[in-house]
Amino acid sequence: MRTIVAIDVGGTQLRAAAYQHDQLEPLTHNRIETKAKEPNAFGRLIDLIEGIWPKNMIVDAIGVSSPGPVDPHNGIVIMTPNIKEWRDFPITAKLSEHFGVPAYLENDANLAALGEWKFGAGRGHHNVLYLTVSTGVGGGVIIEDRLLQGIHGLAAELGHTTVQANGPLCGCGQPGHLEAFSSGTGIERFVAEQLKAGRESILPVEKKNSAYTIAKAAKQGDTLSIEAYQIAGTYLGIGVANFLHAFDPSIVIFGGGVSQSGPLLFDSFNESLKQRVFHPRYLEELVIARAELGDNSGLLGARALAEFKLQ
Amino acid sequence: MRTIVAIDVGGTQLRAAAYQHDQLEPLTHNRIETKAKEPNAFGRLIDLIEGIWPKNMIVDAIGVSSPGPVDPHNGIVIMTPNIKEWRDFPITAKLSEHFGVPAYLENDANLAALGEWKFGAGRGHHNVLYLTVSTGVGGGVIIEDRLLQGIHGLAAELGHTTVQANGPLCGCGQPGHLEAFSSGTGIERFVAEQLKAGRESILPVEKKNSAYTIAKAAKQGDTLSIEAYQIAGTYLGIGVANFLHAFDPSIVIFGGGVSQSGPLLFDSFNESLKQRVFHPRYLEELVIARAELGDNSGLLGARALAEFKLQ
Repeated sequence: MRTIVAIDVGGTQLRAAAYQHDQLEPLTHNRIETKAKEPNAFGRLIDLIEGIWPKNMIVDAIGVSSPGPVDPHNGIVIMTPNIKEWRDFPITAKLSEHFGVPAYLENDANLAALGEWKFGAGRGHHNVLYLTVSTGVGGGVIIEDRLLQGIHGLAAELGHTTVQANGPLCGCGQPGHLEAFSSGTGIERFVAEQLKAGRESILPVEKKNSAYTIAKAAKQGDTLSIEAYQIAGTYLGIGVANFLHAFDPSIVIFGGGVSQSGPLLFDSFNESLKQRVFHPRYLEELVIARAELGDNSGLLGARALAEFKLQ
Repeated sequence: MRTIVAIDVGGTQLRAAAYQHDQLEPLTHNRIETKAKEPNAFGRLIDLIEGIWPKNMIVDAIGVSSPGPVDPHNGIVIMTPNIKEWRDFPITAKLSEHFGVPAYLENDANLAALGEWKFGAGRGHHNVLYLTVSTGVGGGVIIEDRLLQGIHGLAAELGHTTVQANGPLCGCGQPGHLEAFSSGTGIERFVAEQLKAGRESILPVEKKNSAYTIAKAAKQGDTLSIEAYQIAGTYLGIGVANFLHAFDPSIVIFGGGVSQSGPLLFDSFNESLKQRVFHPRYLEELVIARAELGDNSGLLGARALAEFKLQ
C-alpha cells in the first residue's frame, strides 16, 4: 500500500491523480486539454502533476498510461495522438529526473486490463482477457496475476489477429484482422461499401455514417445496419475463440463504445463464440463482463502498474 | 536441484527415466510398448517406474507428459492414444499414492515447450513460443520463465487458431484453423482434393499420399506438391504473426516432422511472416530455431515441469 501519482495521456485530455494506500478515490486530481497552441506538452504536464502532488507525503512512484505505441520496458512514448513533439519521447526518465521517484509506462489497453483486474470487473480473477472495441480493437491480458507485456512490450495487440487471411484491410494495412471486421471503423467500412454497391438502407449514401448512427438505424430496423453489427459480432466471436484457445482466461471483459451496443453486437457474438470454441470446456464458468472503470481506466491502470512494479 | 522421475506416455511407447541434480543424462531409464493385449496399462507403468526408481536416493517428485487432452491442474488424463481404459484417469493421484511423492501432469506440446526452454533451443530465453508441426499443429508458450497453462489447463492450443474463417475443416471439426492448412494432415488433404479435381502430378490419384511422400515429390519438382508445402508455409507465417502479436516472444522453436521440410516449408513461411507482422519491431532479434530435444522432449519436459512445480 503506497502513494502513487497516476497520469493518463489521452488524445483529448491529460489527467493526473494521486492515490493513497487502498483508497479507490484519489486524494487529488486534475485535467487539462491535450492539444495546446504552443508545443510544450511536457512543461504543461509537469505543471499539472505539481498541482496535484500530495503535500507532506512521500510519493512512491508515477504510473503513466498512453495510447500505443509505447516501449514500456524503456519508458518511451513512440508516438501519441495530438502531441506531435513526443516522438520516441523518454517520458519515464524525464519524469523520474524531475520528481525523483521511479516512473512506469504502458499503453492504454494493457493498463485498462490491469486496472479492471485490480479495481474493476476482473477483481478476484487471475487470468483476464480484456478487449476494447471502439474505433479500433485493442487487447490486454493478465496471466496468473501478471500483465503480459512481451519481449518488445508489444504483446496482446489482439485487434491485429488475422481471422480471414484474404479479408478486408485493417487500418494497419494488413488484410483480415479482427479490427477490420469488429471495430467501429470496420462497421462503417462495411456499410459504406454496401451503400456504394446500391444496397437499400435508411442511411444516406452520400455522407459518412458513424458506427453510432449505424447502431441507431439498426434499432429502427434497418437491415443493412443490423447485418453490419451481426458481422462485427460474428468475427468478434471468432477472435475471442482464438484468444480462449491461446490464453484460456476465466473472464473476458469488454470496454469501448462499440461494446456498449448490447444484443445488436452480442447476440451474434455469443452464437459465434459458442460455435467456434473447439472444446466446450473453455466456456465452463467463463465470465463475460463489461468494463467497470469507464473514463478512469487509464488513471487506475497507471496506478495499478506502478503498484505492480513496486511489488 | 533435485531427483526427479520423468514419465512420457507416448502413443507408441511408455518411457520412464530418473534425473539427478543438474545432470542432463538420466541416472536410469527404460521403455515399454504402450499397447498391450491386457488392459493393465497402469500396472505395467508402475512396474516400469519401479524398475528405474533410483536406489538409496530420495525422489522429490514425478513429472508426467501425455498427449492431450489432459487436465493439468487436477492431474487427470482425459484420454490418451492406445490406452483405452484411461478415460478421466487421475494419474497423478494414483502415482502419488503408490510412490509417496508429489506428481505433476501436462500435455506433450506444453512440456516440449518447457523442456526446450530449460534444456534445449530456448535456453536463456524468458519468452518462448514452441510449435510442433506434424500430423497436427500443437503449441506451448513460456512467458517470463513460466509455462502458460490457463484456467482450465487448455491454453496454447495454437493449432486451433482460426486464420481463415471460411476455410477448410480442421480435424476438430471447425473451419479454417491453422492446423487445417499447415499440418501434415492439411498438406495431405490439399493434395488429395487437387488430385481428385484432375490436377496434374507425379503422385498417384488412387491412393493416399503422406506428407512425407508429398515432400519427396516436391523435391523431384512436382508442382502440386511444391504448392501444397507453400500454402502450408504461408499459413504458418500468418499463424506465427498472430502469435507474435499475442505473446511477443524472443524465440520461436519448431518441432515435429513436417517442420523438418526445410526451404520447402520455410521459404514461404519466412516471406509470409515478414509480410504479415504488423510492426517490424516484433522481428527485431527474434530467433527462429529448430527443437533440439527430439525424442527426449517428453521426458525432459516432464522433468522440467516437476522442477518448476517444486520451486
